[in-house]
Amino acid sequence: MATFKRIVLASRPKGQVTPDNFRLEEVPVPSLKDGEVLIRNHFLSLDPYMRMRMEDVKSYAAPQALNETMIGGTAGEIVESKNPKFAVGDKVVGMMGWSEMGVSDGTLLRKVDTAHIPLSAYLGSVGMPGMTAWYGLTQIMQPKEGETIVVSAASGAVGSVVGQLAKQRGCRAVGIAGGKEKCAYVVDELGFDACIDYKAGNLEADLAKATPNGIDAIFENVGGEIFDACLARMNAFGRIALCGLIAGYDGEPMAIRNTRAFLTMRLTMRGFIVSEHPELWPQGLKELGTLVATGKLKFRESVAPSLEAAPEAFIGLLKGKNFGKQLVKLV
Amino acid sequence: MATFKRIVLASRPKGQVTPDNFRLEEVPVPSLKDGEVLIRNHFLSLDPYMRMRMEDVKSYAAPQALNETMIGGTAGEIVESKNPKFAVGDKVVGMMGWSEMGVSDGTLLRKVDTAHIPLSAYLGSVGMPGMTAWYGLTQIMQPKEGETIVVSAASGAVGSVVGQLAKQRGCRAVGIAGGKEKCAYVVDELGFDACIDYKAGNLEADLAKATPNGIDAIFENVGGEIFDACLARMNAFGRIALCGLIAGYDGEPMAIRNTRAFLTMRLTMRGFIVSEHPELWPQGLKELGTLVATGKLKFRESVAPSLEAAPEAFIGLLKGKNFGKQLVKLV
Repeated sequence: MATFKRIVLASRPKGQVTPDNFRLEEVPVPSLKDGEVLIRNHFLSLDPYMRMRMEDVKSYAAPQALNETMIGGTAGEIVESKNPKFAVGDKVVGMMGWSEMGVSDGTLLRKVDTAHIPLSAYLGSVGMPGMTAWYGLTQIMQPKEGETIVVSAASGAVGSVVGQLAKQRGCRAVGIAGGKEKCAYVVDELGFDACIDYKAGNLEADLAKATPNGIDAIFENVGGEIFDACLARMNAFGRIALCGLIAGYDGEPMAIRNTRAFLTMRLTMRGFIVSEHPELWPQGLKELGTLVATGKLKFRESVAPSLEAAPEAFIGLLKGKNFGKQLVKLV
Repeated sequence: MATFKRIVLASRPKGQVTPDNFRLEEVPVPSLKDGEVLIRNHFLSLDPYMRMRMEDVKSYAAPQALNETMIGGTAGEIVESKNPKFAVGDKVVGMMGWSEMGVSDGTLLRKVDTAHIPLSAYLGSVGMPGMTAWYGLTQIMQPKEGETIVVSAASGAVGSVVGQLAKQRGCRAVGIAGGKEKCAYVVDELGFDACIDYKAGNLEADLAKATPNGIDAIFENVGGEIFDACLARMNAFGRIALCGLIAGYDGEPMAIRNTRAFLTMRLTMRGFIVSEHPELWPQGLKELGTLVATGKLKFRESVAPSLEAAPEAFIGLLKGKNFGKQLVKLV
């Protein structure tokens, strides 16, 4: 009998995620009902939001169920079809989870064109991370030409797009990333105006130097001390797109200590979930797809070699060990 | 030679404000130049924002200068005039500071009608505090009929107006205040649906009971633990008007610890300064003035008896000892 591998949530993390929170299983390939398709996943996307789903707390989505396939975005191709809308060989993006194969009735499954855009990019710059960047920048940060924007986790799947889109809108784009190599990439390859290495131990002074006119808008992925340091340099009526607080996912949430800046600088901060704004996806994906296809939006991927390597890659992602979009190569 | 009393900032507070941060002075009544008026102040308004001005930090306004008259809103009457726009006996509201008298060239001086509205109310419900409530509620919280709003410092000059305006818009209004007496006033006299006594030591459970459908919008005056507890009950797409963080004014700023709620519930928080939105004052003051004149907007005042008593009254205000709008009766 044909089988495939998947990874389920074995237990909820107590503090930091550990490999034994996951369990690899080999399961039989199911037979299809009418209307269903069988998908072979080529890439799995690993994203910080998964950390929050692993906990059993009130959130925007139900927690990940124990002993079920871990949630996750995937890109693959149809290998069997009993649905007239999909043919064998079609490339598709969906939410098949941490799994080599998946069955879908076509809901939330999107056919994609890989003629000019690589399949994996639909999990990155032309997928959910890219749209997250696009939404936060255009709908919340709303930067004007000449303004200074700061983005944390700047070399990552989301942050790298935020800065490049901001540059195209005539802004000064300043990134924050961990390590010289990531910072060099952010400036030299992505074209940010500056990038601050928060591991260099000189955050406040480096930030002051990189933002001589203050900060008008922040795309916040990290939280904690880095966010507080940015808040201290905000200009009046600054906007903050709150996308993630990765510094606080793995254990205790991080406090915002510089609360006074919100009052004194009349700041607006908004948390958002890009999947709740489907009406804007066509507009955003059109811009992102065109930019990627024409080489104007650059990206980088860290690819783990197999499903077995996914837990370690995910734990590394939470610690900032990835460089660019974290993917897992499946079969 | 005729003299009057004033209070200047003698030193900046180190942690909590103390009486010796202030100095009472007796100074000569100046003679007027053309275009000026002399005002005898009847009431001085004491407000939490003054605490922040006493420090020498980056903020929306320049810090209060040492050895200068403490900033403050005043209501009084013209006693001498070399300005054709003002006659002796006119009642006026302005920013004459902690002072029995003041000279003005008429800029930012507003004549008020005391036929149906008491003079002191122009420093409260029909003045800056009332407008602060009106702006935060109508422009940031934007509550819909049937929604639940929570306001901290609910018996105070601002909070009391927020809740009453929300009730008139068909909302469930829940206040938070310190002590049984204040809470009874908020419910029985102001007409809030519920009021939580944060000093009762049962904040989370009491809040859960008072907000069975969660919280849709917060008017935040206090910060700290009370704010974190409210954040934990926010509904999706909740709005937070950040007006003050009085819990953090007198010493270290208070952190926001429940940062995750901003992500999971997609909250929007905005700090604001009502004086920056003069275009909305006519609309707001018209609503507030009509409600006060017709007895539909209730308020309460704590009145210190003389300028000499102002420092103690201000220190009490920062500790929540006042009950309603804190004023100082001058001459």
